Amino acid sequence: MAQDPRHFAEELDELKQRLLFMGGLAEERVRLAMRALVERDHSLVAEIIGGDQTINVMQLEIDDRCFKLLALYQPMAVDLRAIVAAVKINSDLERVGDLAVNIAEAADRYVSHAPVKALIDLPRMGTLAQLMLRQALDAFVSQDIKAAHEVLAQDDILDALKNQIFRELLTYMLGDTRTIEPGIDLILISRHLERIGDHATNIAEDVIFIVEARDVRHHAGDLRES
Amino acid sequence: MAQDPRHFAEELDELKQRLLFMGGLAEERVRLAMRALVERDHSLVAEIIGGDQTINVMQLEIDDRCFKLLALYQPMAVDLRAIVAAVKINSDLERVGDLAVNIAEAADRYVSHAPVKALIDLPRMGTLAQLMLRQALDAFVSQDIKAAHEVLAQDDILDALKNQIFRELLTYMLGDTRTIEPGIDLILISRHLERIGDHATNIAEDVIFIVEARDVRHHAGDLRES
Repeated sequence: MAQDPRHFAEELDELKQRLLFMGGLAEERVRLAMRALVERDHSLVAEIIGGDQTINVMQLEIDDRCFKLLALYQPMAVDLRAIVAAVKINSDLERVGDLAVNIAEAADRYVSHAPVKALIDLPRMGTLAQLMLRQALDAFVSQDIKAAHEVLAQDDILDALKNQIFRELLTYMLGDTRTIEPGIDLILISRHLERIGDHATNIAEDVIFIVEARDVRHHAGDLRES
Repeated sequence: MAQDPRHFAEELDELKQRLLFMGGLAEERVRLAMRALVERDHSLVAEIIGGDQTINVMQLEIDDRCFKLLALYQPMAVDLRAIVAAVKINSDLERVGDLAVNIAEAADRYVSHAPVKALIDLPRMGTLAQLMLRQALDAFVSQDIKAAHEVLAQDDILDALKNQIFRELLTYMLGDTRTIEPGIDLILISRHLERIGDHATNIAEDVIFIVEARDVRHHAGDLRES
Protein backbone atom coordinates (compact mmCIF):
# COMPACT_ATOMS: atom_id res chain seq x y z
CA MET A 1 0.00 0.00 0.00
CA ALA A 2 1.36 3.35 -1.04
CA GLN A 3 0.05 5.25 2.00
CA ASP A 4 -0.55 4.71 5.70
CA PRO A 5 -2.82 1.64 6.06
CA ARG A 6 -4.49 3.12 9.19
CA HIS A 7 -5.74 6.01 7.11
CA PHE A 8 -6.99 3.54 4.53
CA ALA A 9 -9.03 1.65 7.14
CA GLU A 10 -10.55 4.90 8.38
CA GLU A 11 -11.41 6.08 4.90
CA LEU A 12 -12.85 2.71 3.91
CA ASP A 13 -15.03 2.85 7.02
CA GLU A 14 -16.16 6.35 6.12
CA LEU A 15 -16.97 5.17 2.59
CA LYS A 16 -19.14 2.39 4.02
CA GLN A 17 -20.96 4.86 6.27
CA ARG A 18 -21.69 7.11 3.29
CA LEU A 19 -23.07 4.14 1.33
CA LEU A 20 -25.25 3.23 4.33
CA PHE A 21 -26.51 6.80 4.48
CA MET A 22 -27.26 6.84 0.76
CA GLY A 23 -29.01 3.48 1.12
CA GLY A 24 -31.15 4.99 3.89
CA LEU A 25 -32.14 7.86 1.58
CA ALA A 26 -33.02 5.46 -1.26
CA GLU A 27 -35.05 3.27 1.09
CA GLU A 28 -36.90 6.30 2.49
CA ARG A 29 -37.83 7.40 -1.01
CA VAL A 30 -39.25 3.96 -1.83
CA ARG A 31 -41.23 4.10 1.44
CA LEU A 32 -42.62 7.54 0.58
CA ALA A 33 -43.51 6.49 -2.98
CA MET A 34 -45.46 3.51 -1.63
CA ARG A 35 -47.17 5.77 0.93
CA ALA A 36 -48.13 8.20 -1.87
CA LEU A 37 -49.76 5.24 -3.63
CA VAL A 38 -51.60 3.80 -0.63
CA GLU A 39 -52.73 7.17 0.80
CA ARG A 40 -53.48 8.55 -2.70
CA ASP A 41 -51.38 11.60 -1.89
CA HIS A 42 -50.62 13.81 -4.92
CA SER A 43 -48.43 16.28 -3.01
CA LEU A 44 -46.19 13.47 -1.76
CA VAL A 45 -45.76 12.32 -5.37
CA ALA A 46 -44.55 15.78 -6.39
CA GLU A 47 -42.09 15.76 -3.47
CA ILE A 48 -40.59 12.44 -4.54
CA ILE A 49 -40.30 13.35 -8.22
CA GLY A 50 -38.71 16.70 -7.36
CA GLY A 51 -36.26 15.42 -4.78
CA ASP A 52 -33.87 13.03 -6.52
CA GLN A 53 -31.00 15.52 -6.43
CA THR A 54 -29.61 14.58 -2.99
CA ILE A 55 -29.06 10.96 -4.03
CA ASN A 56 -27.52 12.04 -7.33
CA VAL A 57 -25.03 14.35 -5.60
CA MET A 58 -24.17 11.58 -3.12
CA GLN A 59 -23.50 9.17 -5.97
CA LEU A 60 -20.85 11.49 -7.42
CA GLU A 61 -19.30 12.05 -3.98
CA ILE A 62 -19.12 8.31 -3.26
CA ASP A 63 -17.63 7.52 -6.68
CA ASP A 64 -15.01 10.18 -6.01
CA ARG A 65 -14.14 8.58 -2.66
CA CYS A 66 -13.77 5.18 -4.34
CA PHE A 67 -11.46 6.45 -7.08
CA LYS A 68 -9.35 8.37 -4.57
CA LEU A 69 -9.02 5.29 -2.35
CA LEU A 70 -7.98 3.17 -5.34
CA ALA A 71 -5.47 5.73 -6.62
CA LEU A 72 -3.96 6.72 -3.26
CA TYR A 73 -3.71 3.36 -1.49
CA GLN A 74 -3.66 0.86 -4.37
CA PRO A 75 -5.39 -1.72 -2.15
CA MET A 76 -5.17 -5.46 -2.81
CA ALA A 77 -7.34 -8.55 -2.34
CA VAL A 78 -10.37 -8.10 -0.08
CA ASP A 79 -9.91 -4.29 0.13
CA LEU A 80 -9.67 -3.94 -3.64
CA ARG A 81 -12.79 -6.03 -4.09
CA ALA A 82 -14.65 -4.00 -1.43
CA ILE A 83 -13.95 -0.70 -3.18
CA VAL A 84 -14.82 -1.91 -6.67
CA ALA A 85 -17.99 -3.39 -5.14
CA ALA A 86 -18.70 0.02 -3.55
CA VAL A 87 -18.70 1.62 -7.04
CA LYS A 88 -21.22 -0.98 -8.19
CA ILE A 89 -23.37 -0.69 -5.04
CA ASN A 90 -23.35 3.07 -5.52
CA SER A 91 -24.89 2.58 -9.00
CA ASP A 92 -27.41 0.14 -7.57
CA LEU A 93 -28.55 2.65 -4.93
CA GLU A 94 -28.84 5.46 -7.43
CA ARG A 95 -31.08 3.26 -9.58
CA VAL A 96 -33.22 2.41 -6.55
CA GLY A 97 -33.72 6.18 -6.21
CA ASP A 98 -34.78 6.30 -9.88
CA LEU A 99 -37.18 3.42 -9.27
CA ALA A 100 -38.79 5.33 -6.39
CA VAL A 101 -39.45 8.11 -8.92
CA ASN A 102 -40.92 5.56 -11.36
CA ILE A 103 -43.20 4.25 -8.60
CA ALA A 104 -44.27 7.80 -7.70
CA GLU A 105 -45.06 8.57 -11.36
CA ALA A 106 -47.16 5.42 -11.71
CA ALA A 107 -48.86 6.20 -8.36
CA ASP A 108 -49.65 9.68 -9.66
CA ARG A 109 -51.45 8.22 -12.68
CA TYR A 110 -53.10 5.52 -10.53
CA VAL A 111 -54.68 7.91 -8.03
CA SER A 112 -56.33 9.88 -10.84
CA HIS A 113 -58.63 6.83 -11.30
CA ALA A 114 -61.03 5.13 -8.89
CA PRO A 115 -59.15 2.49 -6.84
CA VAL A 116 -59.07 -0.94 -8.52
CA LYS A 117 -58.99 -2.75 -5.18
CA ALA A 118 -57.69 -2.52 -1.63
CA LEU A 119 -53.89 -2.65 -1.84
CA ILE A 120 -52.48 -5.40 0.36
CA ASP A 121 -49.86 -7.43 -1.51
CA LEU A 122 -48.26 -4.43 -3.22
CA PRO A 123 -47.41 -2.69 0.11
CA ARG A 124 -46.12 -6.07 1.33
CA MET A 125 -43.82 -6.19 -1.72
CA GLY A 126 -42.70 -2.63 -0.92
CA THR A 127 -41.89 -3.46 2.68
CA LEU A 128 -40.00 -6.60 1.68
CA ALA A 129 -37.98 -4.81 -1.04
CA GLN A 130 -36.95 -2.09 1.45
CA LEU A 131 -36.02 -4.72 4.03
CA MET A 132 -33.89 -6.61 1.49
CA LEU A 133 -32.10 -3.42 0.56
CA ARG A 134 -31.32 -2.55 4.19
CA GLN A 135 -30.17 -6.08 4.99
CA ALA A 136 -27.94 -6.17 1.90
CA LEU A 137 -26.27 -2.90 2.89
CA ASP A 138 -25.85 -4.00 6.50
CA ALA A 139 -24.28 -7.20 5.18
CA PHE A 140 -21.89 -5.08 3.10
CA VAL A 141 -20.85 -2.92 6.02
CA SER A 142 -20.32 -5.83 8.40
CA GLN A 143 -19.16 -8.17 5.59
CA ASP A 144 -21.67 -10.71 6.87
CA ILE A 145 -22.01 -13.64 4.46
CA LYS A 146 -24.93 -15.19 6.33
CA ALA A 147 -27.00 -12.00 6.13
CA ALA A 148 -26.15 -11.73 2.42
CA HIS A 149 -27.48 -15.25 1.78
CA GLU A 150 -30.71 -14.36 3.61
CA VAL A 151 -31.25 -11.51 1.15
CA LEU A 152 -30.84 -13.90 -1.79
CA ALA A 153 -33.44 -16.25 -0.29
CA GLN A 154 -36.03 -13.48 0.06
CA ASP A 155 -35.98 -12.67 -3.64
CA ASP A 156 -38.16 -15.72 -4.34
CA ILE A 157 -40.87 -14.37 -2.01
CA LEU A 158 -40.82 -11.06 -3.89
CA ASP A 159 -41.19 -12.92 -7.21
CA ALA A 160 -44.11 -14.98 -5.91
CA LEU A 161 -45.89 -11.83 -4.69
CA LYS A 162 -45.36 -10.19 -8.08
CA ASN A 163 -46.94 -13.15 -9.90
CA GLN A 164 -49.87 -13.26 -7.46
CA ILE A 165 -50.50 -9.53 -7.93
CA PHE A 166 -50.44 -9.94 -11.71
CA ARG A 167 -52.99 -12.77 -11.73
CA GLU A 168 -55.31 -10.92 -9.37
CA LEU A 169 -55.18 -7.65 -11.33
CA LEU A 170 -55.76 -9.46 -14.61
CA THR A 171 -59.04 -10.83 -13.22
CA TYR A 172 -60.18 -7.31 -12.32
CA MET A 173 -59.16 -5.94 -15.73
CA LEU A 174 -61.00 -8.69 -17.61
CA GLY A 175 -64.13 -8.03 -15.54
CA ASP A 176 -64.24 -4.22 -15.79
CA THR A 177 -62.51 -2.22 -18.54
CA ARG A 178 -62.37 0.86 -16.28
CA THR A 179 -59.72 -0.96 -14.24
CA ILE A 180 -57.42 -1.60 -17.24
CA GLU A 181 -55.45 1.64 -17.17
CA PRO A 182 -54.99 1.86 -13.38
CA GLY A 183 -54.42 -1.92 -13.27
CA ILE A 184 -51.47 -1.61 -15.65
CA ASP A 185 -49.92 1.01 -13.36
CA LEU A 186 -50.18 -1.36 -10.38
CA ILE A 187 -48.52 -4.10 -12.47
CA LEU A 188 -45.74 -1.68 -13.41
CA ILE A 189 -45.26 -0.73 -9.74
CA SER A 190 -44.90 -4.42 -8.86
CA ARG A 191 -42.15 -4.66 -11.53
CA HIS A 192 -40.36 -1.62 -10.11
CA LEU A 193 -40.42 -3.22 -6.66
CA GLU A 194 -39.12 -6.47 -8.16
CA ARG A 195 -36.20 -4.52 -9.61
CA ILE A 196 -35.44 -2.97 -6.21
CA GLY A 197 -35.22 -6.54 -4.95
CA ASP A 198 -32.85 -7.30 -7.85
CA HIS A 199 -30.59 -4.43 -6.78
CA ALA A 200 -30.58 -5.75 -3.19
CA THR A 201 -29.67 -9.15 -4.63
CA ASN A 202 -26.79 -7.61 -6.63
CA ILE A 203 -25.45 -6.01 -3.45
CA ALA A 204 -25.74 -9.27 -1.50
CA GLU A 205 -23.85 -11.11 -4.26
CA ASP A 206 -21.13 -8.47 -4.15
CA VAL A 207 -20.79 -8.99 -0.39
CA ILE A 208 -20.25 -12.72 -0.86
CA PHE A 209 -17.72 -12.02 -3.61
CA ILE A 210 -15.80 -9.52 -1.43
CA VAL A 211 -15.55 -11.81 1.56
CA GLU A 212 -15.12 -15.20 -0.05
CA ALA A 213 -13.58 -14.10 -3.37
CA ARG A 214 -16.06 -16.59 -4.70
CA ASP A 215 -18.55 -15.61 -7.28
CA VAL A 216 -22.07 -16.72 -6.38
CA ARG A 217 -23.49 -15.22 -9.54
CA HIS A 218 -24.53 -17.93 -11.95
CA HIS A 219 -23.59 -20.53 -9.33
CA ALA A 220 -19.99 -20.45 -10.52
CA GLY A 221 -18.65 -21.39 -7.12
CA ASP A 222 -15.02 -21.23 -8.23
CA LEU A 223 -12.51 -20.16 -5.61
CA ARG A 224 -10.30 -17.30 -6.68
CA GLU A 225 -6.99 -16.18 -5.34
CA SER A 226 -7.40 -13.63 -2.56
CA MET B 1 2.86 1.13 -12.45
CA ALA B 2 4.14 -2.00 -10.78
CA GLN B 3 4.57 -3.97 -14.01
CA ASP B 4 5.58 -3.42 -17.62
CA PRO B 5 3.24 -0.77 -19.06
CA ARG B 6 3.39 -2.39 -22.53
CA HIS B 7 1.84 -5.53 -21.09
CA PHE B 8 -0.79 -3.39 -19.43
CA ALA B 9 -1.76 -1.73 -22.73
CA GLU B 10 -2.02 -5.15 -24.39
CA GLU B 11 -4.11 -6.58 -21.61
CA LEU B 12 -6.38 -3.54 -21.49
CA ASP B 13 -6.90 -3.90 -25.24
CA GLU B 14 -7.71 -7.58 -24.79
CA LEU B 15 -10.19 -6.68 -22.03
CA LYS B 16 -11.92 -4.24 -24.36
CA GLN B 17 -12.13 -6.88 -27.10
CA ARG B 18 -13.72 -9.33 -24.66
CA LEU B 19 -16.29 -6.71 -23.63
CA LEU B 20 -17.04 -6.05 -27.32
CA PHE B 21 -17.49 -9.76 -27.88
CA MET B 22 -19.80 -10.07 -24.86
CA GLY B 23 -21.73 -7.03 -26.11
CA GLY B 24 -22.14 -8.76 -29.47
CA LEU B 25 -23.55 -11.83 -27.72
CA ALA B 26 -25.99 -9.72 -25.66
CA GLU B 27 -27.09 -7.80 -28.75
CA GLU B 28 -27.61 -11.03 -30.71
CA ARG B 29 -29.80 -12.41 -27.94
CA VAL B 30 -31.98 -9.29 -27.97
CA ARG B 31 -32.24 -9.60 -31.77
CA LEU B 32 -33.29 -13.26 -31.48
CA ALA B 33 -35.83 -12.51 -28.73
CA MET B 34 -37.45 -9.85 -30.91
CA ARG B 35 -37.44 -12.26 -33.87
CA ALA B 36 -39.12 -14.90 -31.70
CA LEU B 37 -41.83 -12.32 -30.96
CA VAL B 38 -42.36 -11.09 -34.52
CA GLU B 39 -42.16 -14.53 -36.16
CA ARG B 40 -44.16 -16.14 -33.32
CA ASP B 41 -41.45 -18.78 -33.00
CA HIS B 42 -41.79 -20.97 -29.87
CA SER B 43 -38.60 -22.97 -30.52
CA LEU B 44 -36.51 -19.79 -30.73
CA VAL B 45 -37.92 -18.72 -27.35
CA ALA B 46 -36.74 -21.97 -25.80
CA GLU B 47 -33.29 -21.46 -27.31
CA ILE B 48 -32.97 -17.96 -25.82
CA ILE B 49 -34.20 -18.97 -22.36
CA GLY B 50 -31.88 -21.96 -22.33
CA GLY B 51 -28.77 -20.19 -23.59
CA ASP B 52 -27.84 -17.51 -21.04
CA GLN B 53 -24.87 -19.51 -19.76
CA THR B 54 -22.26 -18.23 -22.25
CA ILE B 55 -22.83 -14.61 -21.22
CA ASN B 56 -22.76 -15.54 -17.53
CA VAL B 57 -19.43 -17.36 -17.90
CA MET B 58 -18.02 -14.39 -19.84
CA GLN B 59 -19.08 -12.00 -17.07
CA LEU B 60 -17.01 -13.93 -14.54
CA GLU B 61 -14.03 -14.09 -16.91
CA ILE B 62 -14.14 -10.35 -17.62
CA ASP B 63 -14.48 -9.46 -13.92
CA ASP B 64 -11.44 -11.65 -13.28
CA ARG B 65 -9.46 -9.79 -15.94
CA CYS B 66 -10.43 -6.44 -14.40
CA PHE B 67 -9.38 -7.41 -10.89
CA LYS B 68 -6.09 -8.87 -12.13
CA LEU B 69 -5.32 -5.69 -14.09
CA LEU B 70 -6.08 -3.56 -11.02
CA ALA B 71 -4.01 -5.73 -8.67
CA LEU B 72 -1.02 -6.32 -10.99
CA TYR B 73 -0.57 -2.90 -12.60
CA GLN B 74 -2.21 -0.52 -10.10
CA PRO B 75 -3.19 1.82 -12.93
CA MET B 76 -3.90 5.51 -12.39
CA ALA B 77 -6.11 8.24 -13.88
CA VAL B 78 -7.70 7.37 -17.22
CA ASP B 79 -6.59 3.69 -17.07
CA LEU B 80 -7.98 3.24 -13.57
CA ARG B 81 -11.28 4.78 -14.62
CA ALA B 82 -11.41 2.58 -17.75
CA ILE B 83 -11.01 -0.63 -15.76
CA VAL B 84 -13.53 0.28 -13.05
CA ALA B 85 -15.89 1.28 -15.87
CA ALA B 86 -15.27 -2.13 -17.47
CA VAL B 87 -16.53 -3.83 -14.29
CA LYS B 88 -19.70 -1.72 -14.48
CA ILE B 89 -20.16 -2.24 -18.24
CA ASN B 90 -19.73 -5.97 -17.65
CA SER B 91 -22.71 -5.85 -15.23
CA ASP B 92 -24.71 -3.81 -17.74
CA LEU B 93 -24.13 -6.36 -20.50
CA GLU B 94 -25.04 -9.28 -18.28
CA ARG B 95 -28.31 -7.55 -17.44
CA VAL B 96 -29.01 -6.95 -21.13
CA GLY B 97 -28.68 -10.73 -21.51
CA ASP B 98 -31.22 -11.17 -18.69
CA LEU B 99 -33.54 -8.69 -20.40
CA ALA B 100 -33.36 -10.74 -23.62
CA VAL B 101 -34.61 -13.68 -21.53
CA ASN B 102 -37.42 -11.50 -20.11
CA ILE B 103 -38.41 -10.47 -23.64
CA ALA B 104 -38.38 -14.10 -24.78
CA GLU B 105 -40.56 -15.14 -21.83
CA ALA B 106 -43.09 -12.38 -22.56
CA ALA B 107 -42.98 -13.30 -26.28
CA ASP B 108 -43.67 -16.91 -25.34
CA ARG B 109 -46.84 -15.87 -23.49
CA TYR B 110 -47.79 -13.40 -26.24
CA VAL B 111 -47.68 -15.93 -29.10
CA SER B 112 -50.07 -18.25 -27.23
CA HIS B 113 -52.80 -15.63 -27.95
CA ALA B 114 -54.12 -14.26 -31.22
CA PRO B 115 -51.99 -11.26 -32.35
CA VAL B 116 -53.22 -7.93 -30.93
CA LYS B 117 -51.97 -5.99 -33.94
CA ALA B 118 -49.21 -5.90 -36.56
CA LEU B 119 -45.97 -5.16 -34.70
CA ILE B 120 -44.18 -2.13 -36.15
CA ASP B 121 -43.04 0.23 -33.39
CA LEU B 122 -41.90 -2.55 -31.04
CA PRO B 123 -39.40 -3.98 -33.58
CA ARG B 124 -38.26 -0.39 -34.22
CA MET B 125 -37.62 -0.02 -30.48
CA GLY B 126 -35.70 -3.31 -30.55
CA THR B 127 -33.51 -2.22 -33.47
CA LEU B 128 -32.80 1.14 -31.85
CA ALA B 129 -31.94 -0.40 -28.45
CA GLN B 130 -29.49 -2.81 -30.12
CA LEU B 131 -27.94 0.01 -32.12
CA MET B 132 -27.50 2.13 -28.98
CA LEU B 133 -25.82 -0.77 -27.23
CA ARG B 134 -23.39 -1.36 -30.10
CA GLN B 135 -22.57 2.33 -30.44
CA ALA B 136 -22.00 2.69 -26.70
CA LEU B 137 -19.56 -0.24 -26.71
CA ASP B 138 -17.77 1.06 -29.81
CA ALA B 139 -17.49 4.42 -28.05
CA PHE B 140 -15.96 2.64 -25.04
CA VAL B 141 -13.39 0.78 -27.14
CA SER B 142 -12.34 3.84 -29.13
CA GLN B 143 -12.95 6.22 -26.19
CA ASP B 144 -15.01 8.37 -28.53
CA ILE B 145 -16.88 11.12 -26.65
CA LYS B 146 -18.87 12.24 -29.68
CA ALA B 147 -20.25 8.76 -30.29
CA ALA B 148 -21.10 8.48 -26.57
CA HIS B 149 -23.12 11.71 -26.72
CA GLU B 150 -25.02 10.38 -29.76
CA VAL B 151 -26.13 7.38 -27.69
CA LEU B 152 -27.46 9.69 -24.97
CA ALA B 153 -29.47 11.65 -27.55
CA GLN B 154 -31.15 8.50 -28.90
CA ASP B 155 -32.60 7.57 -25.52
CA ASP B 156 -35.34 10.20 -25.98
CA ILE B 157 -36.48 8.53 -29.23
CA LEU B 158 -36.71 5.21 -27.40
CA ASP B 159 -38.82 6.83 -24.66
CA ALA B 160 -41.16 8.45 -27.19
CA LEU B 161 -41.67 5.09 -28.96
CA LYS B 162 -42.44 3.44 -25.62
CA ASN B 163 -45.14 6.03 -24.80
CA GLN B 164 -46.64 5.75 -28.28
CA ILE B 165 -46.80 1.94 -27.99
CA PHE B 166 -48.50 2.23 -24.60
CA ARG B 167 -51.20 4.60 -25.81
CA GLU B 168 -51.93 2.49 -28.89
CA LEU B 169 -52.13 -0.78 -26.95
CA LEU B 170 -54.39 0.77 -24.33
CA THR B 171 -56.88 1.65 -27.08
CA TYR B 172 -56.92 -1.98 -28.25
CA MET B 173 -57.31 -3.28 -24.69
CA LEU B 174 -60.22 -0.96 -23.92
CA GLY B 175 -61.95 -2.05 -27.13
CA ASP B 176 -61.53 -5.81 -26.81
CA THR B 177 -60.91 -7.61 -23.50
CA ARG B 178 -59.28 -10.53 -25.37
CA THR B 179 -56.32 -8.23 -26.09
CA ILE B 180 -55.72 -7.34 -22.41
CA GLU B 181 -53.43 -10.22 -21.48
CA PRO B 182 -51.32 -10.21 -24.68
CA GLY B 183 -51.37 -6.38 -24.65
CA ILE B 184 -49.77 -6.32 -21.20
CA ASP B 185 -46.98 -8.56 -22.48
CA LEU B 186 -46.27 -6.15 -25.34
CA ILE B 187 -46.17 -3.26 -22.85
CA LEU B 188 -43.75 -5.23 -20.68
CA ILE B 189 -41.55 -5.94 -23.72
CA SER B 190 -41.44 -2.21 -24.49
CA ARG B 191 -40.24 -1.63 -20.90
CA HIS B 192 -37.54 -4.28 -21.25
CA LEU B 193 -36.32 -2.58 -24.44
CA GLU B 194 -36.36 0.77 -22.65
CA ARG B 195 -34.12 -0.73 -19.97
CA ILE B 196 -31.70 -2.01 -22.63
CA GLY B 197 -31.52 1.60 -23.80
CA ASP B 198 -30.84 2.61 -20.18
CA HIS B 199 -27.91 0.20 -20.02
CA ALA B 200 -26.52 1.63 -23.28
CA THR B 201 -26.91 5.09 -21.72
CA ASN B 202 -25.01 3.96 -18.60
CA ILE B 203 -22.15 2.72 -20.80
CA ALA B 204 -22.08 5.97 -22.79
CA GLU B 205 -21.94 7.99 -19.55
CA ASP B 206 -19.05 5.82 -18.34
CA VAL B 207 -17.17 6.55 -21.59
CA ILE B 208 -17.51 10.29 -21.07
CA PHE B 209 -16.38 9.91 -17.47
CA ILE B 210 -13.32 7.83 -18.46
CA VAL B 211 -12.14 10.25 -21.10
CA GLU B 212 -13.03 13.61 -19.62
CA ALA B 213 -12.96 12.65 -15.93
CA ARG B 214 -16.13 14.65 -15.96
CA ASP B 215 -19.32 13.17 -14.70
CA VAL B 216 -22.22 13.72 -17.11
CA ARG B 217 -24.60 11.90 -14.83
CA HIS B 218 -27.04 14.30 -13.25
CA HIS B 219 -25.48 17.10 -15.33
CA ALA B 220 -22.87 17.62 -12.66
CA GLY B 221 -20.27 18.82 -15.14
CA ASP B 222 -17.55 19.23 -12.53
CA LEU B 223 -14.00 18.66 -13.71
CA ARG B 224 -12.09 16.19 -11.65
CA GLU B 225 -8.37 15.64 -11.39
CA SER B 226 -7.13 13.19 -14.00
